[in-house]
Amino acid sequence: MTTTNTRVLFKEAPEGWVETKHMEVSKVDFNPDTVQLDVGDVVLKVLYLSLDPYMRGRMRVGGKSYSEPFKLGEVLHAGGVAEVYRVGGSAAKFQKGDIVQGMVGWEQWTVARKGQLDGFQKVEVVEGVPLSYYLGVLGMPGMTAYMGLLKICQPKAGETVYVSGAAGAVGLVVGQIAKILGCRVVGSAGTDEKVDLLKEYGFDAAFNYKTETDFIKALEKYCPDGIDCYFDNVGGEMLDAVLKVANRHARFAGCGQISQYNAVEPYGVKNLMQMVAQRILFEGFIVGDYMSSRADFVRDVTKWVKEGKIKYTEHVVEGIEKAPEMFVKLFEGVNIGKLIIKVA
Amino acid sequence: MTTTNTRVLFKEAPEGWVETKHMEVSKVDFNPDTVQLDVGDVVLKVLYLSLDPYMRGRMRVGGKSYSEPFKLGEVLHAGGVAEVYRVGGSAAKFQKGDIVQGMVGWEQWTVARKGQLDGFQKVEVVEGVPLSYYLGVLGMPGMTAYMGLLKICQPKAGETVYVSGAAGAVGLVVGQIAKILGCRVVGSAGTDEKVDLLKEYGFDAAFNYKTETDFIKALEKYCPDGIDCYFDNVGGEMLDAVLKVANRHARFAGCGQISQYNAVEPYGVKNLMQMVAQRILFEGFIVGDYMSSRADFVRDVTKWVKEGKIKYTEHVVEGIEKAPEMFVKLFEGVNIGKLIIKVA
Repeated sequence: MTTTNTRVLFKEAPEGWVETKHMEVSKVDFNPDTVQLDVGDVVLKVLYLSLDPYMRGRMRVGGKSYSEPFKLGEVLHAGGVAEVYRVGGSAAKFQKGDIVQGMVGWEQWTVARKGQLDGFQKVEVVEGVPLSYYLGVLGMPGMTAYMGLLKICQPKAGETVYVSGAAGAVGLVVGQIAKILGCRVVGSAGTDEKVDLLKEYGFDAAFNYKTETDFIKALEKYCPDGIDCYFDNVGGEMLDAVLKVANRHARFAGCGQISQYNAVEPYGVKNLMQMVAQRILFEGFIVGDYMSSRADFVRDVTKWVKEGKIKYTEHVVEGIEKAPEMFVKLFEGVNIGKLIIKVA
Repeated sequence: MTTTNTRVLFKEAPEGWVETKHMEVSKVDFNPDTVQLDVGDVVLKVLYLSLDPYMRGRMRVGGKSYSEPFKLGEVLHAGGVAEVYRVGGSAAKFQKGDIVQGMVGWEQWTVARKGQLDGFQKVEVVEGVPLSYYLGVLGMPGMTAYMGLLKICQPKAGETVYVSGAAGAVGLVVGQIAKILGCRVVGSAGTDEKVDLLKEYGFDAAFNYKTETDFIKALEKYCPDGIDCYFDNVGGEMLDAVLKVANRHARFAGCGQISQYNAVEPYGVKNLMQMVAQRILFEGFIVGDYMSSRADFVRDVTKWVKEGKIKYTEHVVEGIEKAPEMFVKLFEGVNIGKLIIKVA
């Protein structure tokens, strides 16, 4: 069966804001039945793609960073959910028809080589749970929230959990899990619309850090009993303020420091003396450190989603050819909730 | 039996450097057999006093700090080892003849009221272990070293352990325990003489942070395999440098931040992004949080001291009347090792 494979290529490295001209939609003939596979390779039919801000950092030529650069002229990559269409040889990891998640091309059909499949997980299809959720609440962002909160913060019922960057794909899940655990949950975000969203999601209090700029004062107001757990997505000045408001034996999960990514000179955190005075635990983590506990995450969060205890907002756009335009709009903040491209 | 009790009183609050005139040696009649005791109070014969820099902070009138101020005109207090001479009523906690450690007056005879005895511990007298050690390696400084290293850093054989403020009463014990555990141990201190002392104590490398002022360069030189465990006694700029040199999954025990105690404007730590990038754990603690594990500490460190695996340097001066002069000299850095006053 020869068909058309619509793909998005990395055409040009942007300086400053990314524009659609930096990407190119290209169509090629593709025959999923005859494309050559080595033992263990698979042909995937891409169902959903996740567009995330971090990909901007990969749109460069050379240079050192956390993640590898994309290759000019080649297909861009993103987290995706896909169906296994064909398997090379008698590869054991996946079977034809399996639904999987992992890094796939921005394209309708993608070939994943055996070595790449280490990063893929089989998705258990559950009634009432959209497959796109495996790119968000049931994917890496949700698992990041779950692990940071449960493994590092270890909140107890009645404690105050504060989340910065709370309206993001991770923060929204952190807050909702903390509510399920019986905590008082406070979040901050950068627009009033996002603050409203947090309240809809059940946060006990939320504030706009761009209008309430005295962070210590804001935290004292919204966290009258102090802060027992801090899920840190932003670092910098907010982290400094949280140190001042943290209770004895507070636990901080260091997930990201988005306020610092573009800073020329990093913010100097002055209140670390509180680490000793209040005996604070602060641990940085990435979700990959906790793969051995993935089954716990899938079990608990799937249950909570099915029970309606965790809500999740998606902004779904149909068609792979829309991906460049939507990626540009991502940085204009048009989406409320996780931006998803429905490919098939 | 009426005898003389020689005591040192807090006479005047110093501004800047402490001088002998701020203290007063006073002699009063004292009868340990007839002094009135309520049930649970004890009369203690003081054997050893520990003179420590932190006491300078208590020589003030009012003002908020970590520790309570001394009272003008009253006896100064310090950590001490004492013998229980008499017990009020049938108090269960200690018996006549027990050797105990706790906060005692700078005096030959001291009365400890029942409520004060919560902070006292009975000392198991062990052959070959001087009682004064219970103010240092077998007292709070040693226990601080043991708990911070074992409970937070959890070093594994072959890992690199770095200790700042390494020639202090805590740091010297940290380094030696880490050596017993099979680690590579590196320390820093503020004089060449102290650096030599660290090498005598078995540190694999040591440097003078006042002459090697590019801390990152110094750490890269002396810790060629990076830093797995950091026992932080100083905070500030050194902490910032260690963040840059720390290995993935490094553990930092936050014991003190002496570089910041007198700073008008605290140093701003810029490299906290490393907390996430390297998944670092940083936990502040005080020894009092680990009282439930005190028996482990006493067992292990007593054994190591008896086996000669932990050495310990004391600077012992005889006579309570020498205490004011020696306390002043403490700040001139005349002592190498723990400064102890032998009272009886």
